[in-house]
Amino acid sequence: MREVRVFAPATVANVAVGFDILGFAINRPGDEIVARLNDSFSGVRIVVITGTGDKVLPTEVEKNTAGMAALRLLQHLGEEGRGIELEIHKKMPFGSGLGSSAASAAGATVAVNELLGAPLTRESLLYFTVLGEEVADGSFHADNVAPCLVGGITLIRSNDSLDVHHLPVPTNLHVAVVHPEIEILTRDARAVLSDTVLLKTAIQQMGSLASFITALYTNDLPLLGRSLRDHIIEPQRKKLIPGFDQVQAVALQRGALGCSISGAGPSIFALCDSGYLAQAVGQGMQAVFQDSGIESQVYVSPINQRGVEIIEVID
Amino acid sequence: MREVRVFAPATVANVAVGFDILGFAINRPGDEIVARLNDSFSGVRIVVITGTGDKVLPTEVEKNTAGMAALRLLQHLGEEGRGIELEIHKKMPFGSGLGSSAASAAGATVAVNELLGAPLTRESLLYFTVLGEEVADGSFHADNVAPCLVGGITLIRSNDSLDVHHLPVPTNLHVAVVHPEIEILTRDARAVLSDTVLLKTAIQQMGSLASFITALYTNDLPLLGRSLRDHIIEPQRKKLIPGFDQVQAVALQRGALGCSISGAGPSIFALCDSGYLAQAVGQGMQAVFQDSGIESQVYVSPINQRGVEIIEVID
Repeated sequence: MREVRVFAPATVANVAVGFDILGFAINRPGDEIVARLNDSFSGVRIVVITGTGDKVLPTEVEKNTAGMAALRLLQHLGEEGRGIELEIHKKMPFGSGLGSSAASAAGATVAVNELLGAPLTRESLLYFTVLGEEVADGSFHADNVAPCLVGGITLIRSNDSLDVHHLPVPTNLHVAVVHPEIEILTRDARAVLSDTVLLKTAIQQMGSLASFITALYTNDLPLLGRSLRDHIIEPQRKKLIPGFDQVQAVALQRGALGCSISGAGPSIFALCDSGYLAQAVGQGMQAVFQDSGIESQVYVSPINQRGVEIIEVID
Repeated sequence: MREVRVFAPATVANVAVGFDILGFAINRPGDEIVARLNDSFSGVRIVVITGTGDKVLPTEVEKNTAGMAALRLLQHLGEEGRGIELEIHKKMPFGSGLGSSAASAAGATVAVNELLGAPLTRESLLYFTVLGEEVADGSFHADNVAPCLVGGITLIRSNDSLDVHHLPVPTNLHVAVVHPEIEILTRDARAVLSDTVLLKTAIQQMGSLASFITALYTNDLPLLGRSLRDHIIEPQRKKLIPGFDQVQAVALQRGALGCSISGAGPSIFALCDSGYLAQAVGQGMQAVFQDSGIESQVYVSPINQRGVEIIEVID
């Protein structure tokens, strides 16, 4: 029975200046997804889920992000007659702001596509992957899915039309991500946000966003540092993360270019101009949480340029 | 008596997606400013103003954008002991949305700087020019002044710190600008704007803005076209311009990449991928105004890459 195993990386969405439109992939953590042909049935079945700790992920295909993504892809390809077993090995926490549900969905579409002889390009898998992730929080958005699938830093002009663009990655850019062991549900993180924003605040944020894009294209890390300010979302969401201000202050004191909330939180990312600095920044951020009695994990990585990786194919 | 004559071009600010942060220069129209040394007095004097039609510009230095810009520059250089005569030849309408006051201020600082042996770079003149333009509408902003001074398409990350960046100009990009003979005062154009914007609308606009910057760097004119949508300002301001919807529709029907309000209006700009097309688009837009009995002028131009030009120096 042909079998494909893939690794789907964690992602940092929003990136301080691009709420719902920017994201990038990191090297670790990530989920592993296995897809296996089994012609004794037709459709998708989830046969194994590991790594969920004390939580439970639905094994019903239509309620599972990986299952739904695989099913929609199978239907699109007209291959509903095939039987596909899925194994989902969670290797990152849910509700962490690291794109856990996006990783499972992206891993599933890449694995199933490869299993069937790779009829679609990586970019063409985006739509089905977003349909899968939609199961998790009910909203159709690609800011985690796109960088997870294809790697790098991605811009989504429009989630409706999935108009996605690769942005250049400045030399030496590294990221430290700290995941404190507290949970924020995406719906709670959305609930604290005001429906409106002051026009003058939106203008500040737009100046920062446009400069951030410019800094990526011109490899101008000082400008990138000046641009990484979230005027809109961070001030509203940081109250959900105990000690956020101190963590951010330490990151900037140690030389990070910028530091903000990863996705809906509680993870916090800091962009740095070297791996060495990112290590020091990550340790500093972790120490702040530790002083408050909050356990955390630190991940230091360059920007992941590969996206979902095929680890093993067994024919 | 040494004398310098300069041409200061009109500018299109906001550019649909970059309210208060984006602007570009065009080749025509523009103001001419003459600065002349006259050591029979000290300070700045405005000796001639032409081209104001039935309107009056203040000749008092502190109340005139060109006068104030020249004075602030002179003070910065410690040259208040010198006497400088200014001539201001207005060659574009006020309240047109084409950066008329910015052009006079930029022309004045470049002319005075050149008159005194060019001690400052063009970029260093920005601050004094913005101080001059501030006289006109009371707000400190560089979105017209920056492209007028240095040409091209400019991004202002922050008006407070005047963090200004040159953006690349795609090959063949041309603009048609139509100025209908109705007047909108900047303060009225500001007054129709709500202080707040819906978060979801701000996100749409940010997607468009980030894609616009990306399109400039990648020379991707189709993306530039998809990005040129103003979700925030145009819907509120277009009611001040009779026939705006029809003018915009004709521009897009004729093949413009995008069309929106220039600055605070009433001028309307359309970006096009050739000079030929920009001509046809400009004529089409003018015809719509004509059908409503509104006279208008059309200007077709590539993006002006030179900014203020020194036309003549007499020693």
